[in-house]
Amino acid sequence: MRFPSPISVQWIADFIGATLSGNKNGLATGINEIHKVENGDLVFVDHPKYYEKCIQSAASYIIINKETDCPEGKALLIVDQPFEAYLKIVNHFRPFEPATKPISDGARIGEGTYIYPNAFVGPHVSIGKNCLIHPNVTIMDHCVIGDNVVIQAGTVIGSDAFYYNTKKDRTVWYKKMLSCGRVIIEDDVEIGASCTIDRGVSHDTVIGKGTKMDNQVHIGHDTVIGKNCLFAAQVGIAGAVNIGDGVILWGQVGVSKTLTIGDNVVVYAQSGVPNDLESGKTYFGSPTELAKDKMKELVWLKRIPELWKKVMEK
Amino acid sequence: MRFPSPISVQWIADFIGATLSGNKNGLATGINEIHKVENGDLVFVDHPKYYEKCIQSAASYIIINKETDCPEGKALLIVDQPFEAYLKIVNHFRPFEPATKPISDGARIGEGTYIYPNAFVGPHVSIGKNCLIHPNVTIMDHCVIGDNVVIQAGTVIGSDAFYYNTKKDRTVWYKKMLSCGRVIIEDDVEIGASCTIDRGVSHDTVIGKGTKMDNQVHIGHDTVIGKNCLFAAQVGIAGAVNIGDGVILWGQVGVSKTLTIGDNVVVYAQSGVPNDLESGKTYFGSPTELAKDKMKELVWLKRIPELWKKVMEK
Amino acid sequence: MRFPSPISVQWIADFIGATLSGNKNGLATGINEIHKVENGDLVFVDHPKYYEKCIQSAASYIIINKETDCPEGKALLIVDQPFEAYLKIVNHFRPFEPATKPISDGARIGEGTYIYPNAFVGPHVSIGKNCLIHPNVTIMDHCVIGDNVVIQAGTVIGSDAFYYNTKKDRTVWYKKMLSCGRVIIEDDVEIGASCTIDRGVSHDTVIGKGTKMDNQVHIGHDTVIGKNCLFAAQVGIAGAVNIGDGVILWGQVGVSKTLTIGDNVVVYAQSGVPNDLESGKTYFGSPTELAKDKMKELVWLKRIPELWKKVMEK
Repeated sequence: MRFPSPISVQWIADFIGATLSGNKNGLATGINEIHKVENGDLVFVDHPKYYEKCIQSAASYIIINKETDCPEGKALLIVDQPFEAYLKIVNHFRPFEPATKPISDGARIGEGTYIYPNAFVGPHVSIGKNCLIHPNVTIMDHCVIGDNVVIQAGTVIGSDAFYYNTKKDRTVWYKKMLSCGRVIIEDDVEIGASCTIDRGVSHDTVIGKGTKMDNQVHIGHDTVIGKNCLFAAQVGIAGAVNIGDGVILWGQVGVSKTLTIGDNVVVYAQSGVPNDLESGKTYFGSPTELAKDKMKELVWLKRIPELWKKVMEK
Repeated sequence: MRFPSPISVQWIADFIGATLSGNKNGLATGINEIHKVENGDLVFVDHPKYYEKCIQSAASYIIINKETDCPEGKALLIVDQPFEAYLKIVNHFRPFEPATKPISDGARIGEGTYIYPNAFVGPHVSIGKNCLIHPNVTIMDHCVIGDNVVIQAGTVIGSDAFYYNTKKDRTVWYKKMLSCGRVIIEDDVEIGASCTIDRGVSHDTVIGKGTKMDNQVHIGHDTVIGKNCLFAAQVGIAGAVNIGDGVILWGQVGVSKTLTIGDNVVVYAQSGVPNDLESGKTYFGSPTELAKDKMKELVWLKRIPELWKKVMEK
Repeated sequence: MRFPSPISVQWIADFIGATLSGNKNGLATGINEIHKVENGDLVFVDHPKYYEKCIQSAASYIIINKETDCPEGKALLIVDQPFEAYLKIVNHFRPFEPATKPISDGARIGEGTYIYPNAFVGPHVSIGKNCLIHPNVTIMDHCVIGDNVVIQAGTVIGSDAFYYNTKKDRTVWYKKMLSCGRVIIEDDVEIGASCTIDRGVSHDTVIGKGTKMDNQVHIGHDTVIGKNCLFAAQVGIAGAVNIGDGVILWGQVGVSKTLTIGDNVVVYAQSGVPNDLESGKTYFGSPTELAKDKMKELVWLKRIPELWKKVMEK
């Protein structure tokens, strides 16, 4: 999340009750979780395993539960509970805002856009020109929709990330990471009925220009999808995935988290993608393999009885 | 789509700026895309690969981008852009109609039918007697629901087909085929929560009498489903599929497009159907095989290590 | 379903026109279908195959279509159509109740709970404190939601069970079992967008304290889920399943009906669970096997060509 304007890191340290070390005069321009940090960002880390990764990341300001050396130009904000401090900052800059009407006064709706009855458009949503928003669609706060976008009935844009910090203590097992990211839907995108597109935890979930999705597609938080992709019905894509341009996923394909699919990849129906896929290639299977290899494998599988017979005869 | 009354083919040629050849005095009774054409229909074709198929189809009037011979009694409507001409005709006879209320004045609702709050019923919808339409259901324009039908919460009837004409030119990769078909739901059908049933592109999607579906089932455009079928949760069926009577699909089964499943077929959970299935048989696997063959295959698969050992010992 | 107060079994026999034998002075405390019966319950049986099982079950009062011996202390209610008699009783104690407003007057909503516009909350629903109910959510009648529960947009709580009595006679193939159970959602549960949780047919569907679900998850009727489980997107669980505490199901996992999954089980994405799983173990595949066995099998599968070559060379 970008802050509305840069914030003094000293003010933030005071706000969360942190001891500040390193560059005390810095200005933070945003806050992100570790997968999405950029220069100028605040980030948090509470597990020794990730201390180094976090301190050496692009982030400029690290909320941490240990006194340690701080790289030149960065600052450490030392607190007992970095996760709670992170949530406190997110809550301050993106407080819960009730929606008293189905279409919030604060939403901006472009010319030529038609919104059907029973749709919900939350606070600070922006919708471009010549869009069609069908009945019973939900567009949660701060999401941004481009021009000529069609969103069919029952679809949810901007649901919270499925992202929990595992505590497993007596009272709480999973502590929810508040989602302060948005969903950005670019021009000419069409989304089917009863799809769900989660907002980014701290960054944006992006659906690229001209991409089309069938019904009941799920897109996880912080996932970035390229231009002119086609996703068939019941495809599910986990969080923080990067998908190139012109990618075609057939029905019921599942894609695991934090991986990359290159441009113009095709994945056949019901496949499960556990790792990166190379541009321009066609895949099949769960877990996915190159489709031509998988097809051969299915043929070999049928030859086992014949093979058995040969061995028995020798 | 049937026209409200037969339309002079000369009027249509003038309307789309086409050169008319062949039977200039004909009357067109409807317009359909190639998979669903009937006698009296208009159809379009813009790719040389499909010229012959289209001209020889049941359609009587062919919108085409080439001068060629016209079979006796038919007519050709020659234009540069057949796809755009087709869309222009569809738009004329089925124009976008805004819905200013959750339940349109134009909808017909039968006696004894109860519609919960927050449901949407679009223009020209017809619902029979003694139906139960749950909250947050969406029934889009022109759909037809029989008697004693239950549609559970969040379900969408009549979403647009996922059907695009691939252009891949500089500005547009995928051009949307406008859906002018309907969804027809026959008597005694029950549909679970959060299902999506797409309307036909040009014909009707049909759910046969007495068929029951669990939650989160997806049915594609122009698919015709027989009587007394049972579909478990999260089944997905693509477009233009024909399914017989008494077919049972267990959970998360996927069915590919334009294929036929015979009467009384049973498909086990999570199977993927890539081609026609024969009546009365039971299938399993992705891709599906006869269940008894697939079961044997799974046993053989486990015998590879034993086979390996035998070979090593010889 | 528990009755509001114990009901004289003689009154019930008269109400359904049954001949009463055995303990005629008993009081029935509830009515359940056979998988969920408890002491004091009414149950029905109409197929000779299940007569003995039903008579010997925990149920105290058996609606049956045959005169037979009655165990000490129990009663038989003999009618021609036990299924219809069962439905008559359910309908009497849980009659259809129309909902004239999106949020029923009879619903109890705890302090600090926020319900977004376009949500539906049915009659006799109870929602605890500090909950967040997102737009276009449907909570059907009699469901019970604890404290600190989040239900995201488009989700349906309390849809009917997918449970039919197969008749296959000339007019009716499938006769619907009326659902008189509830959904109970315990404290600190979070449910994603566009999920569907069916009510119990006769008992309760329960989601245990602290459990979190991603989007588009389906939970069948009468299924009982433990505490602190994590279900990723598009998981589907059939009816009458028992799931322990701390169970993790990854994306698109399917679970078949009436089985038991032990505590702390992990099931990898796209797996299909056909039978019980043991506590603390990790599973993969469709059908599921121990993940480490399945992984080895996938390696063996790739060695068939090598094995073939060896055999040919010998």
